[in-house]
Amino acid sequence: MNLRIPGPTPLPPQVTAALQRPMINHRGPTFAELQKKIVAGLQPVLETKNDILILPSSGTGGLEAALVNVLSPGDRVLACTAGSFGERFAKIAAAFGAQVDKLTFPDGVAIEPERVVEKLRAAPETRAVLITHSETSTGVLHPVPELARVIHANSNALVLVDAVSSAGATRFATDEWGIDVVITGSQKALMSPPGAAILAISERAWHAYETARVPRFYWDWKEWKKWAVKGETPFTPALPIYFALDAALDLIHAEGLPAIFARHERLAELSRTRTQQLGFKLLPEPRYASPTVTALYPPTGVDARELIRRTRDDMGVEFAGGQGDLTGKIIRIGHLGYVHDADIQHALNVLEQALVAPVVLQSAALGD
Amino acid sequence: MNLRIPGPTPLPPQVTAALQRPMINHRGPTFAELQKKIVAGLQPVLETKNDILILPSSGTGGLEAALVNVLSPGDRVLACTAGSFGERFAKIAAAFGAQVDKLTFPDGVAIEPERVVEKLRAAPETRAVLITHSETSTGVLHPVPELARVIHANSNALVLVDAVSSAGATRFATDEWGIDVVITGSQKALMSPPGAAILAISERAWHAYETARVPRFYWDWKEWKKWAVKGETPFTPALPIYFALDAALDLIHAEGLPAIFARHERLAELSRTRTQQLGFKLLPEPRYASPTVTALYPPTGVDARELIRRTRDDMGVEFAGGQGDLTGKIIRIGHLGYVHDADIQHALNVLEQALVAPVVLQSAALGD
Repeated sequence: MNLRIPGPTPLPPQVTAALQRPMINHRGPTFAELQKKIVAGLQPVLETKNDILILPSSGTGGLEAALVNVLSPGDRVLACTAGSFGERFAKIAAAFGAQVDKLTFPDGVAIEPERVVEKLRAAPETRAVLITHSETSTGVLHPVPELARVIHANSNALVLVDAVSSAGATRFATDEWGIDVVITGSQKALMSPPGAAILAISERAWHAYETARVPRFYWDWKEWKKWAVKGETPFTPALPIYFALDAALDLIHAEGLPAIFARHERLAELSRTRTQQLGFKLLPEPRYASPTVTALYPPTGVDARELIRRTRDDMGVEFAGGQGDLTGKIIRIGHLGYVHDADIQHALNVLEQALVAPVVLQSAALGD
Repeated sequence: MNLRIPGPTPLPPQVTAALQRPMINHRGPTFAELQKKIVAGLQPVLETKNDILILPSSGTGGLEAALVNVLSPGDRVLACTAGSFGERFAKIAAAFGAQVDKLTFPDGVAIEPERVVEKLRAAPETRAVLITHSETSTGVLHPVPELARVIHANSNALVLVDAVSSAGATRFATDEWGIDVVITGSQKALMSPPGAAILAISERAWHAYETARVPRFYWDWKEWKKWAVKGETPFTPALPIYFALDAALDLIHAEGLPAIFARHERLAELSRTRTQQLGFKLLPEPRYASPTVTALYPPTGVDARELIRRTRDDMGVEFAGGQGDLTGKIIRIGHLGYVHDADIQHALNVLEQALVAPVVLQSAALGD
């Protein structure tokens, strides 16, 4: 199966090989070296000198770990949402007792910095602003550098960014942009299997930690940092993901980040151009289209679900469908991580072939 | 390196092979079947018909997931502790606002049912009793069946059991014993890498969930169950661990649980007998010695740390040291999961050889 979903992404053979490494003692010198090497490999990917923690969890666990370490119940939080993952970030904050102001944009529309400024001026006590960098559900890359700039210029709020489906595929300049907490995951552009969330934590975020009162234990940053200093983790780390990240980061630095970012841009452009020629309609505003995932309405009369089923079951290429309100309405092409021109050309050829197959039109004619 | 620590444990070749399976869509039919098969394979291991959830986290995350779904802040909890992992379970409950009564036993001593009864009679409002089945830090197997019996006979408290280093190596009869929440992990007797916590949840625990008010999102049982019914997970699952568990459960059921339990008993007995012949002193009361890990004080004049360093660095067998107060004082032999007679015989031979090496005695003479 050619996996063309926006994560988990296919593994390079070197990463698959690394998954065969034997288990090690997570309280011994081999693990200490491994963890140190991975952190050193991640820092340039996130363009940061901040502390990096690797937690055994999905990306959503990483979002929770970001929020529970900087918030107290009742804290005001501004959640900028424009899709499922933005909504999820907001929901987690609300679950832990934050007073969440939602600034919602329609599917496919990018967060507007001036609207964020208005909200912050109206609520200067806002403790944190939540932003999703690449909104995987709609294929929008939100303008994080500009958003962070206006947030810092107009408030003392922390800037927390979900970069799960962007970091490593496109530039994420944590320190230059002033991002207080970045959250990413192993299973997207980092070409590793799911199972680890990665956080980069600024000095300002550590300062906020000192007064944050949301209860926490497993996600407690200070514990993770205390043990990281000793080359360990407080709880058993997800070793296979460490082995994978180690191999993947070697590949990333061998290819070079500028080349990787250019490859993602090129594959995104290829995906957008050819699908629009085939009659698909791009969901996001073109200038904000994500370099990692392309969300598309199918051509008139074509059923998205049936198109996904057919390309997967009969043609060996798996695309993603829509989430939330977009369920059954769109198709999403993942082009991130270990993906090259031939993979995307093949996926687009399959999409073209599937479109002319009578079964798709027939199913659409019958309704969904 | 021969890993003789009490987890992560060595992987069978079939499990290593399974880790090479390509990534799949976690929202497609292949994953749905995989999850269903793993749950069906786990139910007999835990002797339960209860719901089983598989969470992307370490075992400690599983403990947190157990507590936050049944407790409200201020709830009274009885934590039976006799080592590091019992202490950890208690700390998590306290972190989330429970009023924790601790019933502490010295290292190596098993929890006494009559003492638990006294505590419950004194605090009939106790919401939950926390027990560690195999206390990995001291090598004690606490008498869970008897404890559960007296708890149910004397209170309405839920019985939550950390079976991370026991389930799959020794009998754990969830339903027969009336255990409300069992927590285990992938990386011990289940012969898989770390990265997944496994919970089995009784009807009583689900009932408690309905009124439990500790804030939660990532660990929220209801979300995991809602998605499990659809063959999915709410957040991206740790796929390599699923592949591993699938292969490991095939091996477990091929060998048969009675044979596995007998193998663990035999290897534990072998470990205890030969080390005592070598002058080691068994930490736990012999009748409560765990079938999965043997904790030992080294012979007089032998430094535990140096013995562990030497067997690891010079002789290729890695034992574990002590935790907490026992740091530097004991050596622990893990004999759980994919481990057979020859492995333990070899480990014990190495231990014997290391004892006669002058460096061990020299270092001990110099002090630690």
